[in-house]
Amino acid sequence: MAKRVAVVLAGCGVFDGSEIHEASAVLVHLSREGAQAEVYAPNIPQMHVVDHVKGQPTPEQRNVLVESARIARGNIKDLATLDVKGLDALIIPGGFGVAKNLSTWATQGKNCSVSKEVEDVLRAFHAAHKPIGLCCISPVLAAKIFPGCEVTVGHDTECEQWPYAKTAEAMRELGCRHVNSQVSEVHVDARNRLVSTSAFMCNAPIHHVHDGIGKMVREVLRLA
Amino acid sequence: MAKRVAVVLAGCGVFDGSEIHEASAVLVHLSREGAQAEVYAPNIPQMHVVDHVKGQPTPEQRNVLVESARIARGNIKDLATLDVKGLDALIIPGGFGVAKNLSTWATQGKNCSVSKEVEDVLRAFHAAHKPIGLCCISPVLAAKIFPGCEVTVGHDTECEQWPYAKTAEAMRELGCRHVNSQVSEVHVDARNRLVSTSAFMCNAPIHHVHDGIGKMVREVLRLA
Repeated sequence: MAKRVAVVLAGCGVFDGSEIHEASAVLVHLSREGAQAEVYAPNIPQMHVVDHVKGQPTPEQRNVLVESARIARGNIKDLATLDVKGLDALIIPGGFGVAKNLSTWATQGKNCSVSKEVEDVLRAFHAAHKPIGLCCISPVLAAKIFPGCEVTVGHDTECEQWPYAKTAEAMRELGCRHVNSQVSEVHVDARNRLVSTSAFMCNAPIHHVHDGIGKMVREVLRLA
Repeated sequence: MAKRVAVVLAGCGVFDGSEIHEASAVLVHLSREGAQAEVYAPNIPQMHVVDHVKGQPTPEQRNVLVESARIARGNIKDLATLDVKGLDALIIPGGFGVAKNLSTWATQGKNCSVSKEVEDVLRAFHAAHKPIGLCCISPVLAAKIFPGCEVTVGHDTECEQWPYAKTAEAMRELGCRHVNSQVSEVHVDARNRLVSTSAFMCNAPIHHVHDGIGKMVREVLRLA
């Protein structure tokens, strides 16, 4: 029987929602491995809307579930209805929406809070020993909720290839172990059943990101 | 030297813009083959905005270039600035945005008009004998502008797998040759240097769509 994997989105677009290519890669690789994706998003307003040409916020208001539905081609459910029973794993793609709509990381860093709905879902999978796949910035959710866990967001030394390397330091300050890795690699925290990969935390060609996420998806399914 | 390929988008989301996973697949495969993607979109209002949960239009107004920038991660140019010189090929992913924002196919079918900017770009690549890659509904643009050309939009007999099969008939009525194909296949019109594949015209698993687009991208680069 096909493994059922919840994919939690945070909007549609790297600067205010889920990173589109990371989300697409998750769905492509789940499909390739014969798993069934069930896409969810919180039915809440976005923190803000960013004009992706200018990189600046606009006065618009949009809803996280409604915008996430663009990635899900309409086949999406309210995160409030997610029931861990009957689901085998959880995957949360990256994008600033994770730091803006699923948590307050974008404005508060390691002092952030994770939205209750998202925290409840993460704790439910964790308590049921079901694997959780994270990429790009979404490992910060695990770092905040599961102190002492092991994750990767890529490298911890800032350079052109790793423009967000300071995130690794913040995760250490949260009491977690950050493991440096390449965009093609994943880190598996076997005890917590967390699988993470850096994705667009790395300034890498898009097919490297796609393939790294493929590795993450396969590890998640192996643990499921 | 890397081949430079113009990718023309029509918004962000299957029901009112570019189909996100088709656009992502184009960018992933171009990257994998070592080509350089240059993403463009017209700087015009969308025909309308569709709530992708309800499948219904909303009163919102959005701009095709600004929404397409979500897929391009901000790295996008106004279609009006596209210069065929220095570009080796053109690819237009599918999605209803092609039929709503790049042409009037959604409302007028074979009696549609193609927007002047898009028509000029298609004619410029065609006149320069540079290949054009099309998928899903975007082959209708070629069918309208290059009478007698050969394209595929999948199968011509409607069924659960091919819900939009009537499109093939409309293309025949335009004087074009429609070639039935599977989602994993492409059709190459060598005379017109058109490469088409059905993508989400087929009710297929997303990785089949991803792989069919990969084949299209490789054929386009081979002809470039």
